Amino acid sequence: METVVKVGESHLSTKEGKHIMKAVVKTGENLGFSYMEVEKPTPKPNEVLIDVEAANICGTDISYFKWGQSAKDFASKFNVKFPFIVGHECAGTVVEVGSDVKKIKVGDRVSLETHIPCGDCFQCKTGNAHNCMNMGIYGTSCDGCFADYAIAPESVCFKLPDSVSFQEGSLFEPAGVAMRAVELSGLEPGDTGLIFGCGAIGLLAIQILQACGVSRVIAVDIDQYRVDMAKKFGAIGVNSLTEDLPAVVKELTAERGGVDFIFEMTGSPKVYETLFDLLRLEGRVVTVGHPGGSIPINITQSINLKGATIKGLFGRGIWSTWYKLSALVEAKKINILDVVTHRFSFSQVDEAFEQLKQGSGKIMFLKDK
Amino acid sequence: METVVKVGESHLSTKEGKHIMKAVVKTGENLGFSYMEVEKPTPKPNEVLIDVEAANICGTDISYFKWGQSAKDFASKFNVKFPFIVGHECAGTVVEVGSDVKKIKVGDRVSLETHIPCGDCFQCKTGNAHNCMNMGIYGTSCDGCFADYAIAPESVCFKLPDSVSFQEGSLFEPAGVAMRAVELSGLEPGDTGLIFGCGAIGLLAIQILQACGVSRVIAVDIDQYRVDMAKKFGAIGVNSLTEDLPAVVKELTAERGGVDFIFEMTGSPKVYETLFDLLRLEGRVVTVGHPGGSIPINITQSINLKGATIKGLFGRGIWSTWYKLSALVEAKKINILDVVTHRFSFSQVDEAFEQLKQGSGKIMFLKDK
Amino acid sequence: METVVKVGESHLSTKEGKHIMKAVVKTGENLGFSYMEVEKPTPKPNEVLIDVEAANICGTDISYFKWGQSAKDFASKFNVKFPFIVGHECAGTVVEVGSDVKKIKVGDRVSLETHIPCGDCFQCKTGNAHNCMNMGIYGTSCDGCFADYAIAPESVCFKLPDSVSFQEGSLFEPAGVAMRAVELSGLEPGDTGLIFGCGAIGLLAIQILQACGVSRVIAVDIDQYRVDMAKKFGAIGVNSLTEDLPAVVKELTAERGGVDFIFEMTGSPKVYETLFDLLRLEGRVVTVGHPGGSIPINITQSINLKGATIKGLFGRGIWSTWYKLSALVEAKKINILDVVTHRFSFSQVDEAFEQLKQGSGKIMFLKDK
Amino acid sequence: METVVKVGESHLSTKEGKHIMKAVVKTGENLGFSYMEVEKPTPKPNEVLIDVEAANICGTDISYFKWGQSAKDFASKFNVKFPFIVGHECAGTVVEVGSDVKKIKVGDRVSLETHIPCGDCFQCKTGNAHNCMNMGIYGTSCDGCFADYAIAPESVCFKLPDSVSFQEGSLFEPAGVAMRAVELSGLEPGDTGLIFGCGAIGLLAIQILQACGVSRVIAVDIDQYRVDMAKKFGAIGVNSLTEDLPAVVKELTAERGGVDFIFEMTGSPKVYETLFDLLRLEGRVVTVGHPGGSIPINITQSINLKGATIKGLFGRGIWSTWYKLSALVEAKKINILDVVTHRFSFSQVDEAFEQLKQGSGKIMFLKDK
Repeated sequence: METVVKVGESHLSTKEGKHIMKAVVKTGENLGFSYMEVEKPTPKPNEVLIDVEAANICGTDISYFKWGQSAKDFASKFNVKFPFIVGHECAGTVVEVGSDVKKIKVGDRVSLETHIPCGDCFQCKTGNAHNCMNMGIYGTSCDGCFADYAIAPESVCFKLPDSVSFQEGSLFEPAGVAMRAVELSGLEPGDTGLIFGCGAIGLLAIQILQACGVSRVIAVDIDQYRVDMAKKFGAIGVNSLTEDLPAVVKELTAERGGVDFIFEMTGSPKVYETLFDLLRLEGRVVTVGHPGGSIPINITQSINLKGATIKGLFGRGIWSTWYKLSALVEAKKINILDVVTHRFSFSQVDEAFEQLKQGSGKIMFLKDK
Repeated sequence: METVVKVGESHLSTKEGKHIMKAVVKTGENLGFSYMEVEKPTPKPNEVLIDVEAANICGTDISYFKWGQSAKDFASKFNVKFPFIVGHECAGTVVEVGSDVKKIKVGDRVSLETHIPCGDCFQCKTGNAHNCMNMGIYGTSCDGCFADYAIAPESVCFKLPDSVSFQEGSLFEPAGVAMRAVELSGLEPGDTGLIFGCGAIGLLAIQILQACGVSRVIAVDIDQYRVDMAKKFGAIGVNSLTEDLPAVVKELTAERGGVDFIFEMTGSPKVYETLFDLLRLEGRVVTVGHPGGSIPINITQSINLKGATIKGLFGRGIWSTWYKLSALVEAKKINILDVVTHRFSFSQVDEAFEQLKQGSGKIMFLKDK
Repeated sequence: METVVKVGESHLSTKEGKHIMKAVVKTGENLGFSYMEVEKPTPKPNEVLIDVEAANICGTDISYFKWGQSAKDFASKFNVKFPFIVGHECAGTVVEVGSDVKKIKVGDRVSLETHIPCGDCFQCKTGNAHNCMNMGIYGTSCDGCFADYAIAPESVCFKLPDSVSFQEGSLFEPAGVAMRAVELSGLEPGDTGLIFGCGAIGLLAIQILQACGVSRVIAVDIDQYRVDMAKKFGAIGVNSLTEDLPAVVKELTAERGGVDFIFEMTGSPKVYETLFDLLRLEGRVVTVGHPGGSIPINITQSINLKGATIKGLFGRGIWSTWYKLSALVEAKKINILDVVTHRFSFSQVDEAFEQLKQGSGKIMFLKDK
Repeated sequence: METVVKVGESHLSTKEGKHIMKAVVKTGENLGFSYMEVEKPTPKPNEVLIDVEAANICGTDISYFKWGQSAKDFASKFNVKFPFIVGHECAGTVVEVGSDVKKIKVGDRVSLETHIPCGDCFQCKTGNAHNCMNMGIYGTSCDGCFADYAIAPESVCFKLPDSVSFQEGSLFEPAGVAMRAVELSGLEPGDTGLIFGCGAIGLLAIQILQACGVSRVIAVDIDQYRVDMAKKFGAIGVNSLTEDLPAVVKELTAERGGVDFIFEMTGSPKVYETLFDLLRLEGRVVTVGHPGGSIPINITQSINLKGATIKGLFGRGIWSTWYKLSALVEAKKINILDVVTHRFSFSQVDEAFEQLKQGSGKIMFLKDK
C-alpha cells in the first residue's frame, strides 16, 4: 500500500486523504528521489495552484539527487526542510488562486521564477529583487513543481504569451539565466564571446548571443557530445581536452588580442587556469558556474593589468530578463526547445536521471508523456 | 577641349599638367556636377593618396547636386570652397603616403571616415571625436572621393580586413550611421523598433537591428519601392500614405503600449506629427534626418509625461562604430551590399543622378564599371 | 454652520458624522480651495491612515488653486473627481492599516510617493513603475494629504529613517524630482550644469548637484528673489532679464564650448529659444517644466549636429531615487529644509497662497503651527 | 670626479659633454637610486622637453628603489633598460618641442600621463588607450621625470589650466587613479564606500568621493598614521588591526547589508579574506592594489551568490579622467595638495626615501626646494 503524505509548507505527514496527487519528493539526506503519492495542496491567500504541463531537470535538481556537499550548503543557506517536492523549472495552467491574489487569474498559463523576493528589502526596492536579502528559492525553501500540481506565490508567476507553448515556457527560467548572462556581458555588436560549458544554459546562451549581435561564439566543453551540440547551435565548438583552445582563440582574435567576453558556466577550477589568458584587455567575464571551493586568482595579472570586469550571476532580472526572452521566443529569433534531447513523465524520474549519466541536453518532464 | 584644373586644398586652377585624372566636381553654386579632368593630387605630409575602387552617392551629395538651402547651410558651416571634388563614401588602395604618415602603408586597403577631427579639442580628447569642435567634413571642407584618386588625412583611414571587399568597405561610412543609430538606441533584446525612412541607411539599420536582437522592425516610408525593399530586408514594411501606421503599431505592441525605440531617418516634419504617439512610455528616439526648419514639439506630452529619451546622431563613433560594423560584415551576419541597386562608373554620373529620380536603393560608382 | 462631508474614494457627501477632521478641498471647477470639515476616512484593505505632520505646496497644487487649462488637462488625464482633498507632498505617522497591509506598521513614520503604480503592467515590471501604464496620481486621482489625516495605498509609503524629521520627509517627493533630474543628467565629476528655474526643485537640484560632483552650477531665473536664493545655495545666479546669460556661459565654459547639461525647470517657451545654444556638443538636457503648448525645435541644429541627448522627466525612480536622496539627507550632505521660506497651518491656506504671490521659496504646512 | 652620462632612449653612456643636468637614476639591479649628472636630453621629433617644477614619489618608484620581485616583473613586462631616469608623476613647463609636435607649444605648463599609448591598436582606437596593446610606461620603458629636465612624447602631455599650480598638476597622475576608481565604481548618490589602504591614492579617493556624492567613506588601514590622515580627510577611519571592521560596517550599513562599493588599494592578500563579506549584495569592487601572487577567491559565495561586480584598474581614462579631475581641482571642490606631507629637492632623494620608512603621506620633489 502506498503512503499518502500531506504537502504544505514543506512538511509532509502520512495520513489518509481525499485529494491525492503524485510528486517527485526528496525525503531526506539520502541518494535519489521518491516518486510518491502526496496530498494535493491548497493555495494560501497569496498563492496559486498550477496544473503542471512541462518541467525540466536543472543542475540544482541533480545535486539534490546526489546530495553531496554543495547540495547541503545550498539547501542549508535557503532553509530546506524534509520532505519536499523538488523541481523549479516548469509551466502550466493556474487552476486555483488564493484570496489575496490580484493579478493572476484561473486559466492563466504561467512559468515560474525560482527566486522568491520579499518585496520589502533594499534590494527588492531598488531593482534587484532577483537577489533579495530575504530570498526564498522555489523547490528548496518550499515545495517545487515536479508534481501533478504545484503551489507558487503569485509574485513569481510570469504569464506566458499565447504563442508560447508550455514546453517553451518551462524553459524560460534556465533560458533566463542565459539571457541574464548576456545582460551582464556588456555585449557589443560584432563581439566574439567564449562560453565554458555546453550544457543547457551554455547552449541557450549560444542561441541568444547569435540572435543579439555577436560575430562569433567559441563554445568549450570536455564532453564531445556537448561540443557537437554547440556546433549544431552555430558555435565554434572546441573540446578543450583534445584541441588547443588557446591557439584557436589566438587565431580568431588576433586583432583584439583575445575574446571580448567569457561566460564561465562550468564551475570547474581547471577552467580558471587559462580563462583570463583568453580574454582581451578590458574584456568582461560573467561567472555562472559554482565552484566547490576557492579558486586562486592572480589579481594583478588577470584583473588589474588586464583591466577586466567580472560579474557574478545569480538569478534573472525580475521581470526585465523574462520579457526580453519572451519577446525573442515569440518572434522565433531563438528556438529554445532545441536544447531538449529527452522527454519523460514524472513516473520515469529514475530513467531520466539514468539518461543524464549517459549524456544528454536538457531533460524534460511532460504531463501527457 | 577639356580644361585641366589643379586640385589642392580645394583650390582648382586651370593649367597644363602631366598627371591628369578624372573627377566629379562641384564648380560653383549651380545645379549638377561636372565630370572633368583635374590634376592628380599629391599628398601633404599627413595625407595619403588612394586609388579609388568603389564609392557611393549619399544624401549630402544629392543636396550638393541640387544646391538648395540645406546644401548651402551645411557647406557654409563647414567652409566649402569652389571648385571641389564631391563624394565621401569610398574604399580603395593607398598608393602614396605623406612624410608624416605613420600607421597607414602603401598597399593598405582603406575606407574613409567623413568627419575629420582635430585631435586636440575637448570633444576629441574625451571620446567624441566624431563631433569635434573644429571638425572638417570630407568632400565638403576639402576635396572628396568621386575621382580616380582621392587624398585623405591619415587620421580618417580605416584599414579594411582582407575578407571585406572594396564594395563592402565603401559602404562602411553609411552603414556606420545605421550602426551608430543602434548604439544610441539603447537596444535591448526583444525590442520592437520603428524606422521612419527606408533609404539606404534605413535599410542598413534594419539589417543591423535584425542581427542585434530586436524581435521586430517596423519600417515606414511613403515610397512603395522602398517599403518593398524594407520587406525584403525582413522588416514589417508600412506605407504610411496607404496604410494605417498607428493601427499597425498598436496591434503589434499592445502589451508595451508602443514601440521601444524609433529611428527618424527622413527629416520630414510630417513624421513628427505622430512619432511620439507611436513610442511607448520611457521609449527612445534617435533623430538622424535633418528637417529644414523648426518642428513643433509638445514637450509636456511627447517628452515629459512620456518619459522619452531623444538622441541626436551626427557621425559615427571613431573607431568603435567601425569595428562593430566591420566585425558583423566579416562574420557575414549582415550583407550590406544588398542595399546597392545600381552601379555606374564616375563617367556616368549624370545617369546615376537620373536613376535616383526614378527610384533606387544605394547607387555605387565602380572604378572598373 | 460648517458642513461635514464624507471623504472616501474621492466622493464627498454632506452628512452628520462622528469622526470629523479638517481638510483643504477642491470642491469644483472654481478658483481656490476650501478649508472645511470632512469625515475622517478609514483605510481600505491595502491602505494606511496617516496622521499628517508636515506638507508642502507644489506647482500642481498652485495650478489646481487657479484651475486653468493645464490643471484641467492634467486632472482629466488622471481621472479627477470633485470634491477631493488636495496636496501630495507630506510626511506623518501611520495610525491605522488596512487588513492586507503587510509591510507598513502602525507607528511607522512615512513620506508618500505621488505616482501610484498598478504593479502589473510592462512598465511596473521592468523597473519603470514611476511611469506606470495605469498610473494614479496621489492628490488628483484620489484624495490627497492637505488634511489632519491622509489615506494612502501601502505601495506608495516610504519609511523615513529615524534621523530624518517630518519636515525633511515631507520634502522627499519634490527633492526626489531634483534627484531624478540628476539621475537622468548623465552627471560626470567636474561638469558644469545649468538650471533654468530657481523654484524649490531648482534650488534642491543645486544642492544635490553640489554634493554630487559638479564643478559649477549656473542657475537662471527672471525673478531676482529666486536668483538670490540660488546664489545662497552656492550657484552662479543669473537673472536672464537683466544679465547676458550667453556671455556668462561662454566665459565660464570656453574650453568645452557650452555647459555639459541643462535642467529645464520652467516650462517657459522663451527658455527654449536659447537653451540649445548654451549646451556643448554632445551635451544633455533634462526637461522637467511642462510648457503649455508646442515648442519649435530646430532638430537639425539643436539636436542632430549638436549630438544632444534630451530626457523627459516624470516622477522619481521607485524606490531608487528615494534611497539616494534619503542617504544624502541622513548624512547631512544636503540641507533640504533650506528651501522652505514660510510655514503655515492648513487653516491658513489662503494666507499661504497669498504669500506665493508675494514671492517665496517652498511653503510648508505644519500640523502644530 | 662625477661621471657624466648621456640620457637618450634609456641608454646612458659616460662621456664629457656640454649640457649637463642632474637626475635620479636607476643604474642597475641593485638597491636604491643614484643622484648624478647626466647629459641634458634633446627631444625627438614627436617629443617635448620639460623643465620639471614638481614631481612625486609613487609606489612604483618605491618598488624600483627596493628592486624586489614585483619591480622585476613589472619592469620586464614594460621593457626596462638600465640605466634609466626614474619617476613619472610631475609637472613643469615645456621649453623645447620636436619637429613633429603639433599641439603642445613652448611655454605650455603640462602634467604627464604615465601610460604611453601607440595610438594604432584596437584598444587605442576604441576608447581604451589607457590599456594600449603596445603600451609604454613613462619612467620604465623610457626615461622618467626625476630630473632637472624631462623628455616626454607629445601624446602624454596634459595642458594645465592657468589656475592649477605645478604642485597640483604633478599630482594629477595619482589623483587620476583615484578618479578612475570612482569612474569604475558605479557610484550612486548616497552610497557608502569602503577603501582599503589610506596611502596617497586612498586619501585622494576619499576627497573625490566626498565631492561626488557618497554619504560616507569608511577608510581602512593598519597604520594609525594613515588612519588618522583619513579621518582628517573626512572619512570614518578604521584601523583593522585594533578595531572590529566587520562590526563597524555592519552597524553603518544595516539596511543595505554591507557597503555599496569597495576600493582595494593595498594589494594585501589579508584584505581579501574579509573583503567580500563587507560588500552588500549586488555591490561593486574596484581592485587597484597589486598582490604579489594569487589570491584564493570563493567564486560561488563571494561573486556569484553575491551578485558582485569586480573591475580591475590600470591607468586613467585618456583624457576623460584628467578633465574630470582638473575641473574639480579648478573649482576647489577638492584640495589634492592635502595629501602631501613632505617636500624635498631631488638632491635629497635619499632623505626622501628615508622619510617614507618613517611614515608619510605623499612625498614631493620641488625644483626650488
